[in-house]
Amino acid sequence: MNGKRATAFVPGHVTAFFSAHPAADPAVAGSRGAGLTLSDGVDVTVETIDDPEALAAGDASATADASAPITLDGEPASIGAVADVLAALDVCARVDVETDLPLGAGFGVSGAAALGTALAANAVADRGRSENELVRIAHEAEVERGTGLGDVVAQARGGVPIRLEPGAPGHGALDGIPAHARIEYVTFGELSTEAVLAGDTAALTAAGERALSRLRADPRLPTLMDASREFAARADLLVPEVAEAIEAVDRASDPDGDGTAGDGSEGDGGSAAMAMLGRTVFALGTGLSDAGYDPAVCHTHPAGARLLENSDNRHSDNRRD
Amino acid sequence: MNGKRATAFVPGHVTAFFSAHPAADPAVAGSRGAGLTLSDGVDVTVETIDDPEALAAGDASATADASAPITLDGEPASIGAVADVLAALDVCARVDVETDLPLGAGFGVSGAAALGTALAANAVADRGRSENELVRIAHEAEVERGTGLGDVVAQARGGVPIRLEPGAPGHGALDGIPAHARIEYVTFGELSTEAVLAGDTAALTAAGERALSRLRADPRLPTLMDASREFAARADLLVPEVAEAIEAVDRASDPDGDGTAGDGSEGDGGSAAMAMLGRTVFALGTGLSDAGYDPAVCHTHPAGARLLENSDNRHSDNRRD
Repeated sequence: MNGKRATAFVPGHVTAFFSAHPAADPAVAGSRGAGLTLSDGVDVTVETIDDPEALAAGDASATADASAPITLDGEPASIGAVADVLAALDVCARVDVETDLPLGAGFGVSGAAALGTALAANAVADRGRSENELVRIAHEAEVERGTGLGDVVAQARGGVPIRLEPGAPGHGALDGIPAHARIEYVTFGELSTEAVLAGDTAALTAAGERALSRLRADPRLPTLMDASREFAARADLLVPEVAEAIEAVDRASDPDGDGTAGDGSEGDGGSAAMAMLGRTVFALGTGLSDAGYDPAVCHTHPAGARLLENSDNRHSDNRRD
Repeated sequence: MNGKRATAFVPGHVTAFFSAHPAADPAVAGSRGAGLTLSDGVDVTVETIDDPEALAAGDASATADASAPITLDGEPASIGAVADVLAALDVCARVDVETDLPLGAGFGVSGAAALGTALAANAVADRGRSENELVRIAHEAEVERGTGLGDVVAQARGGVPIRLEPGAPGHGALDGIPAHARIEYVTFGELSTEAVLAGDTAALTAAGERALSRLRADPRLPTLMDASREFAARADLLVPEVAEAIEAVDRASDPDGDGTAGDGSEGDGGSAAMAMLGRTVFALGTGLSDAGYDPAVCHTHPAGARLLENSDNRHSDNRRD
């Protein structure tokens, strides 16, 4: 027999621009910047393993493989930040991560996996941590694994987060753009966050700080997109497929060349930018559709990460697997 | 012809306990404490008045009465904090506030009206303010009118907010209990927030600080309820009808008197407490139903206040009025 199970949903997060702020304390380290949380996200299910021996005995309800307690879209996976979160909460559990988002493409899937694990593991093991504590634990795990700097705090908040100050709750500070938008995206492949963050980030950080100043002076979606494009150019991060798509969206949304693009409202062709860090282009409104691409479509997500309402063991008969 | 319109939804908020922290600067003033945001909330629709003369000329689409630009559940109303928010954003508009929540009963309707007005007025008049700025404007209006100290920041956050430090964004600090629950409530009448806040709040604040310490040490829903009950007794705020209901819920949820009450999960009789400040009892789970009351039923709300997705003038044909 297995134990309690809980599922958390964590929105995806595309970063529009950022500056890196390393620190010895992973709760203090992080990034400034801004991005969009997405209704396309990650479901993380944590199930405590109360009686590992029952697995070996072939209990019909037990599908966990003790040697592969983490799965990603059904396949055994190694996700360091997830293992670190379980260790920090002292929880022995299997973790199933499910997402329709592309991996390694700038959607914050690793941060979502860590944060969802923290929320669901705290619930199933009744650890009694507060939301700020759980966000801090996930942020620290993500920073220490080098897989991200600002996704976790943004995903905990939801909406269109602006990261004013880096770090976990108690250190960082957030604001947001009061807007919602239809979002389209196309991914052309992976880009290593670790490799970029391990390189010289001085130019990147200068460009990120400049973009943040611009957005703070005018916290609107079109300014977020413009600032993101300027950031990608100044930080020299633009990849050819993404640059081509951004130009195609511009041509489609502003055929008369008068410089006015859409604002991302429904049915409004909007401008496009590159997800940091991924070979991914995202657009407001119908920007990519209008330009002839076949994008995935979602919306900004109004809420932060949260436990789903059937997260308790009385519902364990409804398991997907 | 009238102008753009936008609608914001703001969750209701019952305060479980609080301490009052007045200050000369209304952005710094506020309260510490904790409570629950509710899926029962307030819809605030703001519609700019572009051409007041069209009203007099009998334009069929114009239903605004220029002499009563604020309505509450369809009736002309005077809500000082709403007028102050419009003034702060320099927006000329009619504001329609609609809610199923009882008024003056401890659900934060006045704070919700102010916060919803800020979000919707910023959208229709394209004021370009950030979310933190809009929350600050609504918080200041509520504090200056003496109608509340902590509802606005809690309603902007959603979930089960813990107010660690008083004040608007940039001054205050929030955490949360990572939980959701079915909530039941019964209201026996109004209680004046202004009168309590204008009185001697020393005992109240000492009791509130003690309750907060207790909850921070154990951020779980049952502890929130226990701390709320202890607070009501120590601050001498309990009214007879509410005290009677709380006792009835205790008897129903713990018939064997063993001291273990429910935790608020679905179908679980849970303990009850008094909403601060109102003649209102609220319970987790099915506490009030089990005790024979006929309560209103809702849930904790996972998200903070937000603009609804049809908030733009292309949808103005779908008006309710």
